[in-house]
Formats: sequence, structure tokens, C-alpha cells
Amino acid sequence: MLEKTTRVNFLFDFYQSLLTPKQRNYMEMYYLEDYSLGEISESFDVSRQAVYDNIRRTEAMLEDYETKLQLYKKFIARQQIVDQLTTVLEDHEEALDLLSILKELE
Amino acid sequence: MLEKTTRVNFLFDFYQSLLTPKQRNYMEMYYLEDYSLGEISESFDVSRQAVYDNIRRTEAMLEDYETKLQLYKKFIARQQIVDQLTTVLEDHEEALDLLSILKELE
Repeated sequence: MLEKTTRVNFLFDFYQSLLTPKQRNYMEMYYLEDYSLGEISESFDVSRQAVYDNIRRTEAMLEDYETKLQLYKKFIARQQIVDQLTTVLEDHEEALDLLSILKELE
Repeated sequence: MLEKTTRVNFLFDFYQSLLTPKQRNYMEMYYLEDYSLGEISESFDVSRQAVYDNIRRTEAMLEDYETKLQLYKKFIARQQIVDQLTTVLEDHEEALDLLSILKELE
């Protein structure tokens, strides 16, 4: 459950620029600001079902973008490489310059 | 002119999964395989103008995706950091392991 939420949050982070303002609003309120479906439907004056459907469709769109572009998957792979590099470099005090360059990469 | 083509090629590389099969076909033939608009229009039995319009619209879509996702821009920034790291590491023979990890990152 929590893992699912984390994944949606990451996907939202990567692909939100491809969503409509309405989709972004619903997703932000539901996933980032932890509003309930009922609260969201009240503030936009639409049915709870409409909000629910919109959010489910948006999640499917995010997964579709991820299937096509794999930004999240590549991000994780890069992150692992950066972690590997960081571990190796931490053993060498003279490598502090490199660590600061790596920070930029992250 | 050549620079423009290179940019379109990169953008196509990053975002082709978001295009329709027809858009992909035209772009591949025009930009990668160097067919003329006339040749493409003949092989799909459509007007030269239709091919031209489709390619121009697709280019605009690619630029729009780049504005939103900036994959090409971030790719260039990461590439510069990797080059920087590589230059520093090449001065240290003991750093061969790191260089192989960096190769993966590229």
C-alpha cells in the first residue's frame, strides 16, 4: 500500500508536466496533501465518483508514460550507480572533489 | 541547419515512444534514412504536403515534450558532469574501477 503510493508519487513527479491542470490538482490534493476524495469533490463541486475516476485514469496515464519513457526506472538505476561511486569514493579522502561533483549529479 | 537536424534527431530519440506509428515512420524516413518528402509521399500514397505538414507538426510536438520534460537538456548536463568526473579520474591510475562504473552511467 505505502509502496504503491510512493511509486505514484514518483511517477507524478516525473510526468506531471504532461497532465492537465485539473489532473494535477486532483493528484496533488489526493497524494501530496492527503485530502480525501470527498473533500476534493466538495472543493471542486463535482461528484466523488468523478474525482475517483479522474484520479484512477491519471494513474493509468502515469503508468503508460512510464512504460514508454521509463524515467523512474532509469532514475533508480542511475541512483544505484551514484551510490556505488559514492561508497568507493568515501574510502579515499583525496576524493572529496569528486564527491561534490557527484552531489550535482544526484 | 546541421545543428537543427542533430537536435531533432536527439529529441526523436528521447520521445519517439510518445508518437504514433505514422509519425514515427515519417520521421525515421526523413531524418534517419534521408528520404525526400516526395519519396515518402509516394511510398505512403499521400500528398507531399501531407507528409510535410505531419513532419512539421511532429517536430513541434517533440519541442513541446522537451519544454515539459527536458530530457535532452538534462542529458547534456549529465554528460558534462560525467566528462568532468572522467577527466579527474583519468589522472589516477587506481581509479580504473570507477571509470568502468562511469561507463555504465553513460
